[in-house]
Amino acid sequence: MERVKTGIPGLDEIMMGGVPRSHQTLITGTSGTGKTMFCCQYMYNGVKKYNDRGVYLSFEEPADSITENAKSFGWDFKSIEKSGKFSFIRYDPYHIEDVFDILESTIRQVKANRVVVDSVSALGLHIKDEAELRRMIFNLSIILRKLGCTSLLVSEIVPGTKGLSRYGVEEFVADSVVVLYYERLQSTFVRAVQIWKIRGSPHSEKLHPYKIDNSGVTVYPKEEAFIKRT
Amino acid sequence: MERVKTGIPGLDEIMMGGVPRSHQTLITGTSGTGKTMFCCQYMYNGVKKYNDRGVYLSFEEPADSITENAKSFGWDFKSIEKSGKFSFIRYDPYHIEDVFDILESTIRQVKANRVVVDSVSALGLHIKDEAELRRMIFNLSIILRKLGCTSLLVSEIVPGTKGLSRYGVEEFVADSVVVLYYERLQSTFVRAVQIWKIRGSPHSEKLHPYKIDNSGVTVYPKEEAFIKRT
Amino acid sequence: MERVKTGIPGLDEIMMGGVPRSHQTLITGTSGTGKTMFCCQYMYNGVKKYNDRGVYLSFEEPADSITENAKSFGWDFKSIEKSGKFSFIRYDPYHIEDVFDILESTIRQVKANRVVVDSVSALGLHIKDEAELRRMIFNLSIILRKLGCTSLLVSEIVPGTKGLSRYGVEEFVADSVVVLYYERLQSTFVRAVQIWKIRGSPHSEKLHPYKIDNSGVTVYPKEEAFIKRT
Amino acid sequence: MERVKTGIPGLDEIMMGGVPRSHQTLITGTSGTGKTMFCCQYMYNGVKKYNDRGVYLSFEEPADSITENAKSFGWDFKSIEKSGKFSFIRYDPYHIEDVFDILESTIRQVKANRVVVDSVSALGLHIKDEAELRRMIFNLSIILRKLGCTSLLVSEIVPGTKGLSRYGVEEFVADSVVVLYYERLQSTFVRAVQIWKIRGSPHSEKLHPYKIDNSGVTVYPKEEAFIKRT
Amino acid sequence: MERVKTGIPGLDEIMMGGVPRSHQTLITGTSGTGKTMFCCQYMYNGVKKYNDRGVYLSFEEPADSITENAKSFGWDFKSIEKSGKFSFIRYDPYHIEDVFDILESTIRQVKANRVVVDSVSALGLHIKDEAELRRMIFNLSIILRKLGCTSLLVSEIVPGTKGLSRYGVEEFVADSVVVLYYERLQSTFVRAVQIWKIRGSPHSEKLHPYKIDNSGVTVYPKEEAFIKRT
Amino acid sequence: MERVKTGIPGLDEIMMGGVPRSHQTLITGTSGTGKTMFCCQYMYNGVKKYNDRGVYLSFEEPADSITENAKSFGWDFKSIEKSGKFSFIRYDPYHIEDVFDILESTIRQVKANRVVVDSVSALGLHIKDEAELRRMIFNLSIILRKLGCTSLLVSEIVPGTKGLSRYGVEEFVADSVVVLYYERLQSTFVRAVQIWKIRGSPHSEKLHPYKIDNSGVTVYPKEEAFIKRT
Repeated sequence: MERVKTGIPGLDEIMMGGVPRSHQTLITGTSGTGKTMFCCQYMYNGVKKYNDRGVYLSFEEPADSITENAKSFGWDFKSIEKSGKFSFIRYDPYHIEDVFDILESTIRQVKANRVVVDSVSALGLHIKDEAELRRMIFNLSIILRKLGCTSLLVSEIVPGTKGLSRYGVEEFVADSVVVLYYERLQSTFVRAVQIWKIRGSPHSEKLHPYKIDNSGVTVYPKEEAFIKRT
Repeated sequence: MERVKTGIPGLDEIMMGGVPRSHQTLITGTSGTGKTMFCCQYMYNGVKKYNDRGVYLSFEEPADSITENAKSFGWDFKSIEKSGKFSFIRYDPYHIEDVFDILESTIRQVKANRVVVDSVSALGLHIKDEAELRRMIFNLSIILRKLGCTSLLVSEIVPGTKGLSRYGVEEFVADSVVVLYYERLQSTFVRAVQIWKIRGSPHSEKLHPYKIDNSGVTVYPKEEAFIKRT
Repeated sequence: MERVKTGIPGLDEIMMGGVPRSHQTLITGTSGTGKTMFCCQYMYNGVKKYNDRGVYLSFEEPADSITENAKSFGWDFKSIEKSGKFSFIRYDPYHIEDVFDILESTIRQVKANRVVVDSVSALGLHIKDEAELRRMIFNLSIILRKLGCTSLLVSEIVPGTKGLSRYGVEEFVADSVVVLYYERLQSTFVRAVQIWKIRGSPHSEKLHPYKIDNSGVTVYPKEEAFIKRT
Repeated sequence: MERVKTGIPGLDEIMMGGVPRSHQTLITGTSGTGKTMFCCQYMYNGVKKYNDRGVYLSFEEPADSITENAKSFGWDFKSIEKSGKFSFIRYDPYHIEDVFDILESTIRQVKANRVVVDSVSALGLHIKDEAELRRMIFNLSIILRKLGCTSLLVSEIVPGTKGLSRYGVEEFVADSVVVLYYERLQSTFVRAVQIWKIRGSPHSEKLHPYKIDNSGVTVYPKEEAFIKRT
Repeated sequence: MERVKTGIPGLDEIMMGGVPRSHQTLITGTSGTGKTMFCCQYMYNGVKKYNDRGVYLSFEEPADSITENAKSFGWDFKSIEKSGKFSFIRYDPYHIEDVFDILESTIRQVKANRVVVDSVSALGLHIKDEAELRRMIFNLSIILRKLGCTSLLVSEIVPGTKGLSRYGVEEFVADSVVVLYYERLQSTFVRAVQIWKIRGSPHSEKLHPYKIDNSGVTVYPKEEAFIKRT
Repeated sequence: MERVKTGIPGLDEIMMGGVPRSHQTLITGTSGTGKTMFCCQYMYNGVKKYNDRGVYLSFEEPADSITENAKSFGWDFKSIEKSGKFSFIRYDPYHIEDVFDILESTIRQVKANRVVVDSVSALGLHIKDEAELRRMIFNLSIILRKLGCTSLLVSEIVPGTKGLSRYGVEEFVADSVVVLYYERLQSTFVRAVQIWKIRGSPHSEKLHPYKIDNSGVTVYPKEEAFIKRT
């Protein structure tokens, strides 16, 4: 199985080389775990270091806000957008009828092979029926697979709930699942990442610490994190 | 009670020889436990090693995706499909009216004696009423029993919930139940399998570790796993 | 209070002689605890050893399946059915309007004094209203009492839930309650039985281990089981 | 505050002399704690030892069944019923429109000063609205207070739930609350009674063991029970 | 911030002098914690010791019952009612349309500056909508503030639930919150009081034991209680 | 990323200089954690020390009550209101159609750059649909961002629930999240603050104690708090 490098230090190593090509990988965690940062770093590295092209679909946070925050980490999305190799789509999750058409045509136009959908959980705000939501996310994955895109799908975990996603269906549709933890150990909060599954492949079965600083996310593939999910 | 060999190293041993012939065995676990891999290995071994014939009904993951992932483990489903001894059915769980007719006719056509239904929980997305769902799964088991098929039924456990299945009815219909665990022990995730029940037969009452690597699933029948379900 | 022997080794001893004559005793436990096996053993012993006559009403598992599984333990239900001393009723729980008439007429015809209803929880699939379900089970108990039958009523516990039954009403209608446990102690699963209540009578207040092997169920009345229900 | 003796050994002592005269005392516990036995013993002692007169209203268990079980403990309800000092009312909880009229007229006829209502939770099967149920129980308490009856109201706790009653309203209407526990300590089940509250009076704040044997209930007022409610 | 003395020994001390004048203080706890007793003691002390005037609004327990129970502690509400300095209002919570008009006119008539509303949770039985209930309690607090009354509002905690009130809104409307605990420590039940908040003021942040005996409630401001809420 | 000083001792330090300019920061905690006090101190310091201008939107507590309580801490909101640099808006959360117009026009009129909305959870009382509520809060954040206001949004946590907010959506809309804890450690209640997230910025990942006394809130940036959320 071929891999696509995220360029996030340490993450590719614990995923046995990167995210599987043409697969959908779910990035899931509570608010504050840095899911959007993982996605920005994946996307920006793709365009700048690996000569890929990309589309970032955001259902809530405006492109401006994401762009501005990314700048703090030295990622200049404005410039790659101008180069034509990257495009932001900001879409209101409350009128989603044609979002997939727009996504598909933008991917074709940009010739994108990297895609981020931030977040698929936001679809659940509009689609109340669990079966319909699962189907929607499933259809999304069909499109992305058909277009050969290596995609990160973001999913929210409500703090204080167990489970891997807001609606309990997101993880069953994705090919791979990466879980981000942000949990209290005594008086300190600890960040850890886990490769929950990669369809058709072995992977690290440990919990690895990661940090967020001015250069973005760094995962420690040789260290183990000790947290206790409450 | 006659047994059918799964050919999964170690699993037949802890099931006292294999899965009971003509029974429905539920394979249940959270996302990432390798349920589909257990089923593929059971099916591929059946056709290649034990001269059986089989049908694999998938409600969500496309045949292509399953086939491609299986190849990573050296299982060439394309070739056994060409030989006429095996058939994939990919069926939209949102139009299930005639799925059982199609399943039955395919089984008859292939002369299949091994069947996988992946997953029966997906039926619950379409059928909201618990009683109707239970009846549906029950009718499925009647058909499979009538046709003399030794079947694996896949069931999902939502991470963070207790219980053996998504809807709490799947395990009451099956003849046998195999539970797959994937749980954190300190900073490492551990895989373990348990034979929860085999109707009309004693079985191992221990929790056994299993691993997933390039040759698929291996169960350790002489070892015990120590996990703590949270 | 007169007792009826179950003939299950050890069980009669911890129930102070057996199940109370003409009472309804609830056998409750999760899938895999062997509830149906307890009932078969009670019924078969009744006809063969104690010269009783019986009716077994099954709402889901077909008579054939029960008969076949029972054979593994040396209980030949076919032969006692032929002798006229025993009758199986398999009834679709989705059309229950006249099930009690059929049960009553079969009991009268067989002159049965032992009855099994497997399971009363299945009634809850059809009857959504808790009050109506309780009334239904209550009416069933009235009939069985009127006919002087000593009855075992099976009830399901959904794994991962606390409580004594699927709907939380079954135990309030029965005269006596027997709870079967199947729970993990470290890496091994342990079976234990508890006499929860016997109306109008003292009973063992300990948790006793039991095993299932080729001769069926054996309870250890002099031993205590150590389990921790999670 | 004047007390009425229950005659249950030890119970009067931990209630500072008995149940408060003209009050409603809730007896609550899971199935199997012996709530009906407490009530029978209270009633029988009242008529035989303390020259009181009583009415026992049962919503589910038939009078015959209660009478028969009581006989095992040496309480002959048939004879006190014949004497005119006691009356059983068996009332279908599904047609409760006029139950309070019947209760009131029976109390007046028997000149009863002791009343048992077994169980007020059964009213909740018919009355789905929490507010209406609370009002119903409240009205019942108004009638009993008006008639000067010292009453025991039975309430069910569903095993595995926390809380003092099935619907969470029963305890707010009663003047006093007695909680019965039946819980596992290691491999043994332990019985304990607690006086949860007595309106307008101090009371024992300890958990006391009790036993059930051939002479009924005995509470140990000088001992403390160690249980852990799970 | 000016304080009003409750006269309950120890309570004023841990509240830094008493309850804040013109504020609403929520008294919350499970059945059996003595909420009504706290209120009676506050009211009776107000009229007798501090020359205040008061109104007690009860939604369920009749005035007679409260009066009678209060007498056990030496509080003669009949006499202060006759003096015109105090008035009981017993109001059916099922017809609450004009309860606030009646409350206001009674307060004006009595010239009351102390008010008890026992309990605001009872309003929730009639008002099913959480927003409407919150608004109702909010409007009540507006009236009481406008009239300059120092008020105790009683709130129920359902045993076995976490949280500060029955509906989870009561505590957000009140200015101050006093929580009463009654919980098991080993085999004994322990009473403890906590000042959860006082708007605009520091307060004791410890858990203090209290006892109930023939002279009513006594809080121990210098002692700490050790309980474990389950 | 530019910071705006709260002037709350210690808080700016653990937020790496203050709250991010033009961002929305969620202040969340149970009743009694001092959320309104944090906001008042932020606002009053802004106007008096940092020459900012502000608007405080309150959905429940009247301006008078907030003003009066603030006075206890030496914050004279009346005077800054007179100076024209500050304005209170008290708005009924039950008629919210035009609240955002009013907020916007008041912000423009006052030329406010600091805003408090106390509380966004109150919006959820009126808006029952989770998706609509999330959109409403989202629109609010768009307006505040457009106007360049640095805002504190208050959110309620229901005691006894896990999670960061009453409705589980508030934290996904805010740029930053500050969590206030008030929890029992043995017999004492402990206050602690945590910077849960700051979008696009690292921050302290420790739990810091804070106290409330006559001068308001003080955070201890060099100390760690040890609490156990139950």
